[in-house]
Amino acid sequence: MERILINNLEEEKEARISGWAEKIRDTKYMIFVILKDRTGSIQVSIDKENNKDIVASLEGVLANSVLTFTGKMVKSEYVKQGGKEFLPVSVEILSSAEGLPIDETANIDTRLDYRWIDLRSRKNNLMINVQTAFVDGMRSFLISEDFTEIHTPKLIATASESGSDVFEVKYFDRKAYLAQSPQFYKQMAMAAGFERIFEVAPAFRAENSNTNRHTTEFTSFDLEFSYIDSFEDVMDMEERLIIAGLENVKEKYENEIKEVFGVDIVIPTRPFPRVKLPDLYQELAKRYDYKIPEHDIGDMNAEAEKLTSRYAMEEFGHEFIFVTDFAKTKRAFYHMRKDDIPQGYDLIWKGTEITTGAQREHRYELIKKQAEEKGLGKDVEFYIEFFRYGCPPHGGFAIGVDRLTMLLLGLPSLKEEMFIFRGPSRLTP
Amino acid sequence: MERILINNLEEEKEARISGWAEKIRDTKYMIFVILKDRTGSIQVSIDKENNKDIVASLEGVLANSVLTFTGKMVKSEYVKQGGKEFLPVSVEILSSAEGLPIDETANIDTRLDYRWIDLRSRKNNLMINVQTAFVDGMRSFLISEDFTEIHTPKLIATASESGSDVFEVKYFDRKAYLAQSPQFYKQMAMAAGFERIFEVAPAFRAENSNTNRHTTEFTSFDLEFSYIDSFEDVMDMEERLIIAGLENVKEKYENEIKEVFGVDIVIPTRPFPRVKLPDLYQELAKRYDYKIPEHDIGDMNAEAEKLTSRYAMEEFGHEFIFVTDFAKTKRAFYHMRKDDIPQGYDLIWKGTEITTGAQREHRYELIKKQAEEKGLGKDVEFYIEFFRYGCPPHGGFAIGVDRLTMLLLGLPSLKEEMFIFRGPSRLTP
Repeated sequence: MERILINNLEEEKEARISGWAEKIRDTKYMIFVILKDRTGSIQVSIDKENNKDIVASLEGVLANSVLTFTGKMVKSEYVKQGGKEFLPVSVEILSSAEGLPIDETANIDTRLDYRWIDLRSRKNNLMINVQTAFVDGMRSFLISEDFTEIHTPKLIATASESGSDVFEVKYFDRKAYLAQSPQFYKQMAMAAGFERIFEVAPAFRAENSNTNRHTTEFTSFDLEFSYIDSFEDVMDMEERLIIAGLENVKEKYENEIKEVFGVDIVIPTRPFPRVKLPDLYQELAKRYDYKIPEHDIGDMNAEAEKLTSRYAMEEFGHEFIFVTDFAKTKRAFYHMRKDDIPQGYDLIWKGTEITTGAQREHRYELIKKQAEEKGLGKDVEFYIEFFRYGCPPHGGFAIGVDRLTMLLLGLPSLKEEMFIFRGPSRLTP
Repeated sequence: MERILINNLEEEKEARISGWAEKIRDTKYMIFVILKDRTGSIQVSIDKENNKDIVASLEGVLANSVLTFTGKMVKSEYVKQGGKEFLPVSVEILSSAEGLPIDETANIDTRLDYRWIDLRSRKNNLMINVQTAFVDGMRSFLISEDFTEIHTPKLIATASESGSDVFEVKYFDRKAYLAQSPQFYKQMAMAAGFERIFEVAPAFRAENSNTNRHTTEFTSFDLEFSYIDSFEDVMDMEERLIIAGLENVKEKYENEIKEVFGVDIVIPTRPFPRVKLPDLYQELAKRYDYKIPEHDIGDMNAEAEKLTSRYAMEEFGHEFIFVTDFAKTKRAFYHMRKDDIPQGYDLIWKGTEITTGAQREHRYELIKKQAEEKGLGKDVEFYIEFFRYGCPPHGGFAIGVDRLTMLLLGLPSLKEEMFIFRGPSRLTP
């Protein structure tokens, strides 16, 4: 008999159901099993007197075992859970569980040791499914907009962009490094004539910080596209992309997210508000008496990001806000400049920066000069070559998928959010 | 003025077009530019007498520069290319190209040195877009089938599965390794109660082989799902998945693939033919006088794969064939066994194995025993734990995305196929 999903059970119709035994309760005359599959759960009610085989099979079976029952679903006014129950005629023990080593009171590090058990909670299961919907919504949008998917190498020859914070790999008789981002390669795609590309792939950072925001490995959603007129086009694309992702999440999980996380999914209106950094400083000073510290001038910091979200909500009633006009000393060498101002932005959501985007400098002489100004030499030589034989104007951005989901659901840390977290002192499971 | 894509140009309507100058031909009275964007190309015809500004701007501009023209498209019976031409009133040089360092006669290694130029060819551009459609078709199918997308860590603590062929990473004050596959983690997802998952991500192999089939980094399309009754369910899922991918490719690129690669996209019928290894040996002996060498008994090899495809075509008129009943000594320890026969398969397409799939052993005592039999100790201990606290029966498989595209389009090697190839002696660009 084919397995039927619990939510698809029809009254009085013979069926086979399979799932996790969430709870097993043995009473004088009855055994009750709460059986859960990916669609829902149901109470399986076993009348001991008339089901001696089932009772014998369930002897010693603990919760978290995986069971298959055949029988039928009936309506019952006595059952709290959904007003229905399943009356089995047979059972099969698909997997017999030992008593769990953790419960929901365990701290996060212990829970991460047993992540596969921790992920069974409704909350964590929903979280990963919400991320799937978010990414799927964004990716489908891009495919519909003629974007091509690329897969760029994670093993690279030079320590690239920032030099520090790069993992070193033993590559046969030489050294390789793990890519911190696909930045150079997605721009290479522009020089290769792919007008619009995206990639969803791991990125690696060898940062020795044990904070809630840091991880040594994360999933980066990157895109890059050509023939833009300015970084306004990049901001427009990002607005549409995020809306496509949120709409898919809302359509699939709005009520469940509200119920489990207490979060409302808000589809933002376009355009998102935009503010120049010098103007933002003034607003933050005026409104919240906040002055950016000397060493952060021309840039943002964590506190400024928080206040900026507050400002966006108070002034524009908007969850998102673009900040532009950063100082060139605070931005990567490959951002295009106009009147010495980098042609890029940060996007702030719920108090945190989720993206840096920009128009890139695509002109060979200029990108070469900007790299030299930042003291970048041989390591970026291969990249500068991409612009020598023709390359259209282009721009793009990256979004950290894990951070995005963390902010969406109001989670306290990446440790909670990632399928399996990686940090300086965590490489398992 | 907004940019118009070349294929969307309307007759006599003012427009701005942008793209690559594929060719620039300067004659006595006219300059002709073949301008190409992602939708197509058009001849831009410049009457020199009446367009002195344009002529001056194009002075010294070489093919492969990126240009924007404003003007209008008109029909013209004299133009071979599509019977239309673009008459510009102005030009802007978006990017000025130097003379190319390679041409299409260069050998593959030289072309890889300048991969961003090599990828500009119609053939290579189409190849990457076909791969996008193949993967998108498969992924969309899985999403519609309730699969969840996961992102598993690529940095792992132990050299895992096969021990050799694993890249070592300097991970702060200890060692880490790069994952050869997400096998253990996708099974962890089953133990975590995700009934159906997939992942598309890089996988790493430290094989020091410079062949057409080997690469140190490739894109792996992995899936795993629970509550299967046997590995027949896994084969069924793979059939449906591949058909979904091929249908998307056919819908978008059938004619272009025929024109550029001379390949017909065949949507296979279900079920794909299935043959047991011992029976296959007999067929290959009878039909092609082929005898499997002693050391490959219980397994396949490259020649047997080729002949198996020939057999599939001759006997079943089918491009695909599943081979089952391999010897347990030739299969991974985590394949479930029944009467000592591994419950898995290889899928052969166009003379090459594209997948190994199987039902996995999900019962704690048995998986532990099978690991010990293969002499696997501490390295898989963390994985064995996944099965201790309940885990449904499950199975899955992996497909190499690059190999799939290579076979589909009849390409001679992964070097040609991958966006950027990586091998023991190639880490650039």
